[in-house]
Amino acid sequence: MICFFNNRFLDYEHASLHVSDVGLQRGFGIFDYFLAVGGFIPFFDDYLDRFYGSAMSLNLDVPLSRGEMKEKIFSLIHQNGLTRSAIKLLLTGGYSDDLYLPSVPNFFIINLPVTHSPDEYTEGIKLLLLDYIRFKPEIKTTFYLPTLSLLHELKQKSATEVLYHNSGYISETTRANMFIIRNETLITPSTGVLKGITRKHILQVASGLMAAEQRPVTLQEVFEADEVFITGTSKHLAPVVRIEDQVIGTGKPGRLTLMLAEEFNGYYKRQYSAE
Amino acid sequence: MICFFNNRFLDYEHASLHVSDVGLQRGFGIFDYFLAVGGFIPFFDDYLDRFYGSAMSLNLDVPLSRGEMKEKIFSLIHQNGLTRSAIKLLLTGGYSDDLYLPSVPNFFIINLPVTHSPDEYTEGIKLLLLDYIRFKPEIKTTFYLPTLSLLHELKQKSATEVLYHNSGYISETTRANMFIIRNETLITPSTGVLKGITRKHILQVASGLMAAEQRPVTLQEVFEADEVFITGTSKHLAPVVRIEDQVIGTGKPGRLTLMLAEEFNGYYKRQYSAE
Repeated sequence: MICFFNNRFLDYEHASLHVSDVGLQRGFGIFDYFLAVGGFIPFFDDYLDRFYGSAMSLNLDVPLSRGEMKEKIFSLIHQNGLTRSAIKLLLTGGYSDDLYLPSVPNFFIINLPVTHSPDEYTEGIKLLLLDYIRFKPEIKTTFYLPTLSLLHELKQKSATEVLYHNSGYISETTRANMFIIRNETLITPSTGVLKGITRKHILQVASGLMAAEQRPVTLQEVFEADEVFITGTSKHLAPVVRIEDQVIGTGKPGRLTLMLAEEFNGYYKRQYSAE
Repeated sequence: MICFFNNRFLDYEHASLHVSDVGLQRGFGIFDYFLAVGGFIPFFDDYLDRFYGSAMSLNLDVPLSRGEMKEKIFSLIHQNGLTRSAIKLLLTGGYSDDLYLPSVPNFFIINLPVTHSPDEYTEGIKLLLLDYIRFKPEIKTTFYLPTLSLLHELKQKSATEVLYHNSGYISETTRANMFIIRNETLITPSTGVLKGITRKHILQVASGLMAAEQRPVTLQEVFEADEVFITGTSKHLAPVVRIEDQVIGTGKPGRLTLMLAEEFNGYYKRQYSAE
């Protein structure tokens, strides 16, 4: 695989950076992640908007203009020749003499085979709970240690992700946005979450089909919901059938969840067939 | 400078790691930091206790036994020949095929010249405030993005560190523990903080000199304190004379703070003269 580092293409195997990088030393880094399908990138501009927005929030300079960024990404996809692949953009505060203060950002574009498919989740998944608030949740920072500290427990309990909650309210899961359906109304937290690209388009798809609310959501509401699902770039829409030891709804993917998933799949495919 | 990476000594300039390391990709890393003075490391066992404790909390294997660790660190100090230097231990979740799941940890010992001296802080420092709770504060994780996101403001306002508070209570600053003195009693937060090594020994030094309490501390108490100071490995004991726009105490380092600083300096020097 070829990747892009700062100003050049190189073999991914040789994509190394000095240990003094503050992304490594101090967690001062942002990223974004999206899929390329047959040379097309669904919702490409949404992802770039978010990436440049994350960078600006932390006063990190992205070394490529938006036009250059697109050109490098499409060149990379072409060079690697994968039919379906993942693109990860990673931007850090750069090398640091004192291992603390940032300097000139380091920037990577990584293109790898996709490791997950939405099909993995169709039976419904299980979540664990964690009392945790992400710092500046609207920015896609690299800090996933809270969930990674629970990897053993996730595996042991056959759970996929962790649902973050605090003071009785939920925010999001490790790598996805949370939705509940109650009385045929779709509800998702309005604030304190990363504004997911799939989240945005699910709301778009749902707008013609059912009532939708963006507002604070309590953990209690989640447990009492008729249906629950999470949305993300790799997962699209994954039904949630269990949280910790409690069964959600009927314990099977809900009717409206499956209907939305099917509608979203059609909508998603139209993105790249329209190209 | 020479450093140590996984199983060998190498030139620090060449100390690079692959971009797939989950310390970089997912903030899954811990570290510790201490000083070496003339071939001696004050409170060495305390720092190693904490480092191995942090690793164990996250199920990360340290590739060196405690005996091997000491041997490598002393060898490094000897090879680099600095009279006064800093040692940083860094342990990450290792390289990851999917840029998420950890594998075999990567481990660094870095030995660099010291960039700060306790003398820098004798006039008293200014802190800014941030509503933030560190995740698992008892572990020395690498996530400093919350403070680094305020670097511009810190510089503009001539502030040194950020004081974290939440729901009316304080915890710690970016890189130090917080102490207040009120009615000749020393008070420091009991929980929700990294148990600093300097904190521990300041409490030890203070025990013969004044009353001391470890208990929850409100932000209001900090503003109303007679004296405030922070403690850390590089700073020893730094008087705090201003928080945001508010003057603390008289606006100058307090009498008991200076007395404790002097007592601590004597205690600190006796650590290595006793060797």
